[in-house]
Amino acid sequence: MVTPPPWHFSGNMLWIDCRVTPEAARKFLPEGLSLTQGEMNAAAVFSEWEWCSADFRESADPVRCQFSEFQILLACAHRGKQMARCPYAWVDSATSLTRGWIQGMPKQFGSVHLTRMLPVGLAGGRRGEGARLSGSLGVHDRRFASATVTLSRPEETPPALARLPLVHSRFIPSWTGERSPRARLMTSRVSGTEFGEVWSGSATLSFDESSVGSQDPDLLSLLPTETGNGYSFAYAETLEGGDYLD
Amino acid sequence: MVTPPPWHFSGNMLWIDCRVTPEAARKFLPEGLSLTQGEMNAAAVFSEWEWCSADFRESADPVRCQFSEFQILLACAHRGKQMARCPYAWVDSATSLTRGWIQGMPKQFGSVHLTRMLPVGLAGGRRGEGARLSGSLGVHDRRFASATVTLSRPEETPPALARLPLVHSRFIPSWTGERSPRARLMTSRVSGTEFGEVWSGSATLSFDESSVGSQDPDLLSLLPTETGNGYSFAYAETLEGGDYLD
Amino acid sequence: MVTPPPWHFSGNMLWIDCRVTPEAARKFLPEGLSLTQGEMNAAAVFSEWEWCSADFRESADPVRCQFSEFQILLACAHRGKQMARCPYAWVDSATSLTRGWIQGMPKQFGSVHLTRMLPVGLAGGRRGEGARLSGSLGVHDRRFASATVTLSRPEETPPALARLPLVHSRFIPSWTGERSPRARLMTSRVSGTEFGEVWSGSATLSFDESSVGSQDPDLLSLLPTETGNGYSFAYAETLEGGDYLD
Amino acid sequence: MVTPPPWHFSGNMLWIDCRVTPEAARKFLPEGLSLTQGEMNAAAVFSEWEWCSADFRESADPVRCQFSEFQILLACAHRGKQMARCPYAWVDSATSLTRGWIQGMPKQFGSVHLTRMLPVGLAGGRRGEGARLSGSLGVHDRRFASATVTLSRPEETPPALARLPLVHSRFIPSWTGERSPRARLMTSRVSGTEFGEVWSGSATLSFDESSVGSQDPDLLSLLPTETGNGYSFAYAETLEGGDYLD
Repeated sequence: MVTPPPWHFSGNMLWIDCRVTPEAARKFLPEGLSLTQGEMNAAAVFSEWEWCSADFRESADPVRCQFSEFQILLACAHRGKQMARCPYAWVDSATSLTRGWIQGMPKQFGSVHLTRMLPVGLAGGRRGEGARLSGSLGVHDRRFASATVTLSRPEETPPALARLPLVHSRFIPSWTGERSPRARLMTSRVSGTEFGEVWSGSATLSFDESSVGSQDPDLLSLLPTETGNGYSFAYAETLEGGDYLD
Repeated sequence: MVTPPPWHFSGNMLWIDCRVTPEAARKFLPEGLSLTQGEMNAAAVFSEWEWCSADFRESADPVRCQFSEFQILLACAHRGKQMARCPYAWVDSATSLTRGWIQGMPKQFGSVHLTRMLPVGLAGGRRGEGARLSGSLGVHDRRFASATVTLSRPEETPPALARLPLVHSRFIPSWTGERSPRARLMTSRVSGTEFGEVWSGSATLSFDESSVGSQDPDLLSLLPTETGNGYSFAYAETLEGGDYLD
Repeated sequence: MVTPPPWHFSGNMLWIDCRVTPEAARKFLPEGLSLTQGEMNAAAVFSEWEWCSADFRESADPVRCQFSEFQILLACAHRGKQMARCPYAWVDSATSLTRGWIQGMPKQFGSVHLTRMLPVGLAGGRRGEGARLSGSLGVHDRRFASATVTLSRPEETPPALARLPLVHSRFIPSWTGERSPRARLMTSRVSGTEFGEVWSGSATLSFDESSVGSQDPDLLSLLPTETGNGYSFAYAETLEGGDYLD
Repeated sequence: MVTPPPWHFSGNMLWIDCRVTPEAARKFLPEGLSLTQGEMNAAAVFSEWEWCSADFRESADPVRCQFSEFQILLACAHRGKQMARCPYAWVDSATSLTRGWIQGMPKQFGSVHLTRMLPVGLAGGRRGEGARLSGSLGVHDRRFASATVTLSRPEETPPALARLPLVHSRFIPSWTGERSPRARLMTSRVSGTEFGEVWSGSATLSFDESSVGSQDPDLLSLLPTETGNGYSFAYAETLEGGDYLD
């Protein structure tokens, strides 16, 4: 089901800077990681992806190559190096979910939708002044998150947190009752990182606290308390593997 | 469930010219329509859409605005005017399906996927030389159609059949046993038609005859016997309503 | 896509008596129908179905034969005859949705789940004392309805409203702008009606008003204000066609 | 996403004895397991499940509790003890898929449907003489497997292979390039095993070799060469954890 890496990814990103309560965020950072100070210490990210293996074997079969994702990212540091930590991710593809567990990112299953970029007409999304782009996350037929970004200006760079490497910890629950090995910190080896044109603007981001709380009280504590700017950009990378950080 | 028109549509199209047997095609043309002569008398079209109502009410909720479609189109004429007839269409959204029945296009339910356009990286689609774009149609967990287009050159215009108006016949089966009114020929009133950049190239298009035949022997007779050029382009229109042609 | 009737249906029903505001309910009853007096004037019904055409042609392909449904039913009368009116129905199958429109039941698309009956183990549902059976409706990744019934006793008969014929009005929106014909009242011709063992008990039924209100303010007005008994039973019928009532 | 065990399962099984080529089967048995002699050395199993955690926390939300599965099972022996090995399993739920990886069963994602048991009417399934029950597996919009069992007689016991413990090997691909630990043989600790009424009859089982071969040449080699009896029964168990066998 999962081909060996490297895997190529090209995606359309709807990114929203936000702030989470530092006390809550710290509970999601394992030993060795410290939360970054700053007003916007997190991001909520909707994305829609095409992927394929290094030899492009799935490319002629797009049903195998597509998934959408919603992530919460925390700005953190490891030995003084700025990094990004992903305590929650939802995807709508079992292949992507399984690849996530392999690399130390415990993805969950969710229904994610975001406005698609289309260069003509009135119904699609554009990167241009006044364009409105929206995203949503549903889990088990409950709406968890909804967001809209109204673009106002081009940016020279993507949001800072989007340029940082991710730090994961791979943990597979024990089945025989023996103690699982300590989940070591890992970062991904990526190549071919590419950002397309970046636009930013104002953002609204709301979570349905009743839906979230009914399913995951821990997530409830981590919900953003403030929303910052929103961004739209395309992003690509090739994921080669991982390296231990400790 | 279905808002009143007008409806805006913006889409990404993967278009493949093809030839169907004239005798088979004629069985799908009601009285008043004649099949157009020509080597490529049909098209197979994969498309991925964003839509919204005239007041954009659904736009902040992309889960409501997206669907994908696969159509077979026949080149025909009505009173000397070139038109396009759609004997088969499959969509992955019940809203789109219902709208189709209202306008005289008996859409069926299917799973449609096509390569998404992304401006960065190695995994997405581009409109450029050498780019490969693929599409597939599945019905009830059976693969009906698979296609790949390898782009080689920009075109000044979209394929001829894509610029013709569609001619539909609205038919809702009777429920009380009384005779249904004659299905009159109708064409759609559209505005805001827009084509993006058009690229063309060579195409492969295959249907799984065993899968198709197990579900729909009529469709089996209509499967293309020759494949022509493939095209990729974005397309938009606003659908306002319909007019009787007879 | 839709075979001609008759169609056979066999289903597992989770039924909850409830009360809606009479003023609201009356707005959903067309001329010729009057709301039935009584404390419990409505029902919320989750069901999971197998269906097939008269010649059983789909039966070897269960992917074509299954759907789930959630309905709101109103107790009403036509010329003194007790009947049931269905102002809202959601199904998870486009075939079922289309059949609904043909017979005058404007089904919408939704995600419906209910506990499945299984005769062994701890995880499935049973018709027996203390058994808990649940159902849910999601629309566009929002939870609309959730219900649980705790069974306490066998019943000799199914709930009264479940034994009444349905009265529909077929309405297909106009596409050419001409006035649609008046939607006449119709009832379905059914045969082979069969009820399995019936159990009843206490019920909880909740609607997410914020989710419902964001999508359909009319439905919001019709949400139940009181919940009565819950019931579990199997039900079957063969649907032959429809007859005008006026 | 995955609660800790124990987990309760109750399911409806459509079981078909079959024979695979011994040379092919042996390639799927790791060191320590030997293929069992016998004409029917394998089974193809369609199943539809309700599950819940030990505290029944998901039971009020059936959208979380349901999945369907298709498995290929091989009859094998470990140190003289008869066991069952599952080289292939497909499920339609990411939760079930993840649980599979944890316990050493590398489940893949697929679309599985089987006739549902319903005690009334003509469209559902029954355990009785002449009843026909069908199942199907689709992967990426391709039909992999289709089966029909025509029941003819009650059985005193379920098929032999269904009563044997499963032997798994947990293997999570490496991400950092270091050698993965050897995948040790494990068996599951189960309690509360329960079989419902068992019926058997003649079976047809077909795989679409072209679809399978396009996706997985290894699986192609393992496809059954002969089909034996078919069985229908309900089955339940509580899965507590796993034990190493070596």
